[in-house]
Amino acid sequence: MYTVSLERLQHRLNALSRITDPHLPYTRRAFTGRYLEGRAWLEGEFRAAGLETHTDAGGNLVGRLEGKNARALVLGSHTDTVNSGGRFDGTLGVLSALEVAQTLTENGVKLQHSLEVVDFLSEEPSEYGGLSCVGSRAWTGTLNESMLALENADGERLEQAMKRMGADLERVRQGPLRRSDDLAAYLELHIEQGPALEQAGIPIGAVTGIAGIERWKLRVIGQADHAGTTPMSLRKDALLGASRLVLELNARARATPNLVATIGVFTLSPGAANVVPERVNLLSDTRSIDAVALERFNLDFLEWAKDFLEQAGLRFEFERVSRSAPTVCDPRVLEAIRAGAKKRGHAWLELPSGAGHDGAHMASLCPVGMIFVPSVRGRSHTPEEFTLERDILAGTEVLLETVLELDRILY
Amino acid sequence: MYTVSLERLQHRLNALSRITDPHLPYTRRAFTGRYLEGRAWLEGEFRAAGLETHTDAGGNLVGRLEGKNARALVLGSHTDTVNSGGRFDGTLGVLSALEVAQTLTENGVKLQHSLEVVDFLSEEPSEYGGLSCVGSRAWTGTLNESMLALENADGERLEQAMKRMGADLERVRQGPLRRSDDLAAYLELHIEQGPALEQAGIPIGAVTGIAGIERWKLRVIGQADHAGTTPMSLRKDALLGASRLVLELNARARATPNLVATIGVFTLSPGAANVVPERVNLLSDTRSIDAVALERFNLDFLEWAKDFLEQAGLRFEFERVSRSAPTVCDPRVLEAIRAGAKKRGHAWLELPSGAGHDGAHMASLCPVGMIFVPSVRGRSHTPEEFTLERDILAGTEVLLETVLELDRILY
Repeated sequence: MYTVSLERLQHRLNALSRITDPHLPYTRRAFTGRYLEGRAWLEGEFRAAGLETHTDAGGNLVGRLEGKNARALVLGSHTDTVNSGGRFDGTLGVLSALEVAQTLTENGVKLQHSLEVVDFLSEEPSEYGGLSCVGSRAWTGTLNESMLALENADGERLEQAMKRMGADLERVRQGPLRRSDDLAAYLELHIEQGPALEQAGIPIGAVTGIAGIERWKLRVIGQADHAGTTPMSLRKDALLGASRLVLELNARARATPNLVATIGVFTLSPGAANVVPERVNLLSDTRSIDAVALERFNLDFLEWAKDFLEQAGLRFEFERVSRSAPTVCDPRVLEAIRAGAKKRGHAWLELPSGAGHDGAHMASLCPVGMIFVPSVRGRSHTPEEFTLERDILAGTEVLLETVLELDRILY
Repeated sequence: MYTVSLERLQHRLNALSRITDPHLPYTRRAFTGRYLEGRAWLEGEFRAAGLETHTDAGGNLVGRLEGKNARALVLGSHTDTVNSGGRFDGTLGVLSALEVAQTLTENGVKLQHSLEVVDFLSEEPSEYGGLSCVGSRAWTGTLNESMLALENADGERLEQAMKRMGADLERVRQGPLRRSDDLAAYLELHIEQGPALEQAGIPIGAVTGIAGIERWKLRVIGQADHAGTTPMSLRKDALLGASRLVLELNARARATPNLVATIGVFTLSPGAANVVPERVNLLSDTRSIDAVALERFNLDFLEWAKDFLEQAGLRFEFERVSRSAPTVCDPRVLEAIRAGAKKRGHAWLELPSGAGHDGAHMASLCPVGMIFVPSVRGRSHTPEEFTLERDILAGTEVLLETVLELDRILY
């Protein structure tokens, strides 16, 4: 078995974590100068490890080891962060992939497939309309004109920002940057960003799928009345109706397996101490890897909400604002992850990914799989984000073994 | 019985309603040029009706008919409005008082007491820290230095704004502008701003008291987790806790006689679609004319909330931000209102005022009473605010009779 260098990997994680906005901990927002600084450092590391490296037309940094077969096994993730993010989300996936490539090279292993390590552009929600997974969308040819026209607060368009990152917009507009025929599989190591692995005491997550997400705007409309002069019995308090919706949605989600539902946005108007709330705008976020269950859940809830609010004398408006289909991880990739974990003696747990990832886009091009490692206390997108050394090592070892196994079993 | 002129009163209501911010319907905010324009018009009307008129040291417009006795029966209200307010709130009280004074003069009635008509400065929450009842506070000597230092968005201090309205700040700082000995009673006609009279089909409200108000800041604190990766069972969702508080407060208020409770401010953070809410800040407004019941209600609720949230794994913080004691209307004034309504053949209903009024301050100086007339659909603080002509007439007649009765029975 080949030995990966935990020391080298940790050294690189630390080096990249120090390239941060000085005012916010661990912040390297896509499209910033700081992000390019990280990219320049990373490009040097890719080259030093013997990867043929370039920034592609989608603004992704790609390092490649040519194999006997031109079809590539792609390992990757991203190096952009949210504001005040952590040191592992994304970064670990890119640097562990680099470590795997370097270990193979150092051990003189020549794969059947070519091996690529990719740092996708702007996986996190960007300043450009919140669009995420910009680089992987470019690969799959789904960056449309309305996305390219999204503007940040300074009025810069996404296409302009991508150019600053080295992208070739003319090429992006021509269609997918990569063809299915050229890709054998996409594999990503990532922190779990949730508590399941830590709670189970298991170092490896074999990801079964990436949850689909539905987002609904809900609006409860009552009547703004004087808080002093309107008897309780005569009010049409939108906040009461909205509060019931919150509790009902939560109770239903708790009773539904493999589904989570959250109301993360809840704004009330007019929002004055002495006025009974007239309206509440809510945004629900529901996720499941079961597309049918997800749709059913939302339709049932909305029907209940409509009836309930009508009986309460309140108006109800709702519209779906976004919907992404669940991604099922490829069974061959999943089996290779299991085999890799077994070979290295690491326990594993099969679990879905509740968070979105570039893999959800890559699934339209090739078989996709993901390996999770535990997040301490389930925390991520915060400076507290942490993953233990032993878990980083275990994840990287399983990533390496999975590559070897996929190289053996895939065409 | 003396005949009041509904036509003249309606003419004046219409005239004053036309002095408005041109961009917002029926808006004459205190301390603005528009407000002074209204005041100038009103001063002319006071003088034309034979009242000796001046702006006092508190920036209140006062018109006086000297009686045999220097002690004054004071009738009044206010002519400032909220933004996008109505044509009756406050204005009706000042102009009906003027109509009563003019009717008495025209009929050669000489009262035992002097009669004053007062337009109190800034009864509505002002731009200066939301302070209300500025003029009546000046009468009672409760405008303290921290109030006078309150600033509007442009950094102007309340004391400077009062000077612009003609107030004498040196005099204000010396103490109460009026002495109890000089005042026989304070009486105010006002729209109900609630639905009780209309629902009962009764034109006159004999107000038993002005509700006390307690405002509490409540804060529910959970944990910000990823909305996709955190299982329902492991969340500490502040919005769930806050929603339960809203429903419980409402249920308790419904079960408590003569008390209303409202949560009009409810803000959630971080407020992102994909983040479980970490904290919710709420502001509760509870009102009752029973001071003991009001305090008991809040202490009981807070004790329940503390226990409930603790069991739900959430933190709870709370502090009382304001408290005004209930005002009991004077039984002699209440009896005079009943006698006046009876004399004019108008049905009356005894009811408390849930809204605050200048009378709550005046009660520290002299006996206080209020007459309510119905608000169509209970609406106020909105351009829809409306009171029927026949109710305006009934209210003004009862105001007149109450003055005659008080003049007879009070020292």
